[in-house]
Amino acid sequence: MLGILGTSESLAGEARQHWDREFDVIVVGCGLAGASAAYEAARSGAVVLVLDSGGAAANASHGTIIYMGGGTGLQKACQIEDTPEAMMKYLLASTGPDPDTGRIRVFVERSVANYDWLVSLGVPFSNAPDNLSLEYSGSEKVYPWREMIRPVPRGHIPDVPGSKSLYRGGGAWIQKRLLDGARSAGAATPLNAVARRIVRGHDGVVQGVVATIDGRSFSFRARRGLILATGGFAHNKEMVSEHAPIYLGCTPTDLKWNDGWGIRAAQSVGAAVRRMGSAGAGWYFYHPASRRQGVLVNAQGQRFISEDSYSGRVGDAIVREQHGIAYLIVDRTIMDDGASTVIPDAIAAQAASIADLEGLLGIPAPALQQTLDTYNTYATKGQDPLFHKALEHLRPLSQGPFTAINASVGKSRVSFFTLGGVHTTPGAEVLDTEGKTIPKLYAVGRVSAGIPCPYYYSSGLNLGECITFGRIAGIGAARNRT
Amino acid sequence: MLGILGTSESLAGEARQHWDREFDVIVVGCGLAGASAAYEAARSGAVVLVLDSGGAAANASHGTIIYMGGGTGLQKACQIEDTPEAMMKYLLASTGPDPDTGRIRVFVERSVANYDWLVSLGVPFSNAPDNLSLEYSGSEKVYPWREMIRPVPRGHIPDVPGSKSLYRGGGAWIQKRLLDGARSAGAATPLNAVARRIVRGHDGVVQGVVATIDGRSFSFRARRGLILATGGFAHNKEMVSEHAPIYLGCTPTDLKWNDGWGIRAAQSVGAAVRRMGSAGAGWYFYHPASRRQGVLVNAQGQRFISEDSYSGRVGDAIVREQHGIAYLIVDRTIMDDGASTVIPDAIAAQAASIADLEGLLGIPAPALQQTLDTYNTYATKGQDPLFHKALEHLRPLSQGPFTAINASVGKSRVSFFTLGGVHTTPGAEVLDTEGKTIPKLYAVGRVSAGIPCPYYYSSGLNLGECITFGRIAGIGAARNRT
Repeated sequence: MLGILGTSESLAGEARQHWDREFDVIVVGCGLAGASAAYEAARSGAVVLVLDSGGAAANASHGTIIYMGGGTGLQKACQIEDTPEAMMKYLLASTGPDPDTGRIRVFVERSVANYDWLVSLGVPFSNAPDNLSLEYSGSEKVYPWREMIRPVPRGHIPDVPGSKSLYRGGGAWIQKRLLDGARSAGAATPLNAVARRIVRGHDGVVQGVVATIDGRSFSFRARRGLILATGGFAHNKEMVSEHAPIYLGCTPTDLKWNDGWGIRAAQSVGAAVRRMGSAGAGWYFYHPASRRQGVLVNAQGQRFISEDSYSGRVGDAIVREQHGIAYLIVDRTIMDDGASTVIPDAIAAQAASIADLEGLLGIPAPALQQTLDTYNTYATKGQDPLFHKALEHLRPLSQGPFTAINASVGKSRVSFFTLGGVHTTPGAEVLDTEGKTIPKLYAVGRVSAGIPCPYYYSSGLNLGECITFGRIAGIGAARNRT
Repeated sequence: MLGILGTSESLAGEARQHWDREFDVIVVGCGLAGASAAYEAARSGAVVLVLDSGGAAANASHGTIIYMGGGTGLQKACQIEDTPEAMMKYLLASTGPDPDTGRIRVFVERSVANYDWLVSLGVPFSNAPDNLSLEYSGSEKVYPWREMIRPVPRGHIPDVPGSKSLYRGGGAWIQKRLLDGARSAGAATPLNAVARRIVRGHDGVVQGVVATIDGRSFSFRARRGLILATGGFAHNKEMVSEHAPIYLGCTPTDLKWNDGWGIRAAQSVGAAVRRMGSAGAGWYFYHPASRRQGVLVNAQGQRFISEDSYSGRVGDAIVREQHGIAYLIVDRTIMDDGASTVIPDAIAAQAASIADLEGLLGIPAPALQQTLDTYNTYATKGQDPLFHKALEHLRPLSQGPFTAINASVGKSRVSFFTLGGVHTTPGAEVLDTEGKTIPKLYAVGRVSAGIPCPYYYSSGLNLGECITFGRIAGIGAARNRT
């Protein structure tokens, strides 16, 4: 039985709880967060068990961009000057109202060391100009942030197989390296097990976890700590409806194992949740240069965002502010430059003139024409006073035919992953609804509420957090008394 | 000690829990929801205690509009034809994605009976044409709903002192009547006590509540049920930051006792929460006719909503979609008709022409001029193809001077109340994070997640829910075995 009643069962004390096996640290879930935690716990001398319902190989982190900065080795090799202060300032300004300063500070302060740690593990980064492992993955060069903080690139892309493909899978490479490292430090081979409930004792201390393997139930004691690294809840429709209903029409980016179990299990033993309505929605048009040069409009033919914004910020605006309806308007030049690689299904309308396009889209005249007139007039002067698109992407759209590419939810791929989750301290300890830590329970990665919450405006923050707080939890749990 | 540890204390069984006093049903909080619950529980023969931290008289519900329909006595007296089906259809269409059909159905099915119940309690409603107790309090006459469901008014305003003033306090009148009724049915006089924690037993059944009175702690057993009616959390800045951060700049509509205690206490004994990021934000410009006739624009001088929308929908759009920035543009005619009663502080700019106004507001030319040109051109023809404002409010803005009235968060009063809360069944029973009910625990009013969640587009839904689910909880709790 799950939930508080389940917990109650064990409250008569440890003496009555039967344990099938005992470990020091148990990690549930082994994406990049779980693998980082398992590695550090094992290297700290703890006896470690990793449980993973998807099988370790399958549950690969879906990205490879890792947001790091403040002066990493790669930044230095690329002659990029960055400081922890600048990185902190950028994150405080771009992640949403009332940001979690404590977690952001830890994230920033550990960043250079985390880069060095990855390098020490054999993760390659390239500073070759034609194969650079560093990019502007966030909103650094976008208004208003570029005027607040000098832009520097912080998106680190490991130079491993697959990391440069559209659907990057290179995160799996690092994850495997970490799990191998954990095993060579003595961790047990990850068990293909489905965690069912957390056991919290009479004294409030978390004691272990009950899981099923091939349908049989086993209880595993975690003497020093239980680390949840089970991901978000984008694949649990009921939870999305309960907490983030406006994203119901979007496509989950996450892997299917991201069913929110860790969040619910933690709540069952008293954990608080934070900003559960937050998600990162992305409209990842696969010719980004076209998106930046085009004109994004809503159902009324109005612009609503600077088109050079990060895909996640564009998706966020489409879903949260534009009721899911948007078009990217491009002209022949942009189509010839690469946008024409769009699949025909993505084209909403095409016409010789903007007026005709407006009619085809059902936008009342002259709304779209006015939008383009104003845009073109200013673009000719190298200006965008309405949305402040950077000069390098500003060019009048003047060469017909004009094409409207669908950027609407349901008519194009607007994907999302959840950002809200278990409320944790900067030490990755889980907080209860009274603000007290739940002893020996940790949450890392997207099972925990993120730093970029509600605004995921910088790619790589998820994996960056996975490494930062995964490591912290692994080391912290291993240090606890048994 | 609060939280799960607090609960644990009682888990050795009832024998070890000392109770200072025993009751059948305890109601915490006595706004309209708590008063309705207490009344029904007492009338059902239960021994009832009401706890209220604000003092019963102080904690008056802030509104008086009660959303009821489906053919109430007042609707009939006004020759308004309404059906439960039409009301259901409207609520399903206007309250947000994936609406809570079960709760909405119960709300609709009980509506006529709830009206009759209020009348039987002596609550007066007037069908006098010059003092009508019935109004369109929602979005019934607004696009797109007016085209989906034939509009009928469902906002019932009791004809009691204060109910027609701007800051209506008439809800207090009904509440007092209910508490008097509860007392005459045997309920104890409401105690001015601060509830501290819920006691849930080893068997999972809620047993009672611990509260402090003048700093001393007392335990009250609730043999048949504990009903939480403690309101939302708009006055708890930490909770707003954790769950609904985009509303941090808005002013709480709720009374100061709405600190979210009930939500946190319920979570501590395993309750699930739902849609905690939702809030009803309102820009209640105090000359509504001017708002409907004016033109609302955002920071880019673009229209973004039909100006005849309900104030709550306007506020919602300003906060959630327009980054908190908006202006209402009016001309001299509208000012003369009543908008000029605005306090001078509310005026952002005033100019002889729209072009000059645009300049004063810092909106890049000719964005605002284009917006007004298009609006005026269509308004002259009695059309609004962009946002579908109703014909009766459409009139070109042509008489200078033109005035921009501030509708921005921080520069005008954009108020909010929270809508997310404890997840409940249509029977007002509290659900845990596994979807099971927590025996003998009820939540009613805004401590529970609302029907209009995330969209509060119809005034009176809160009080309507308070009555509906307050009554259900009171009757349901009284029926439980001791």
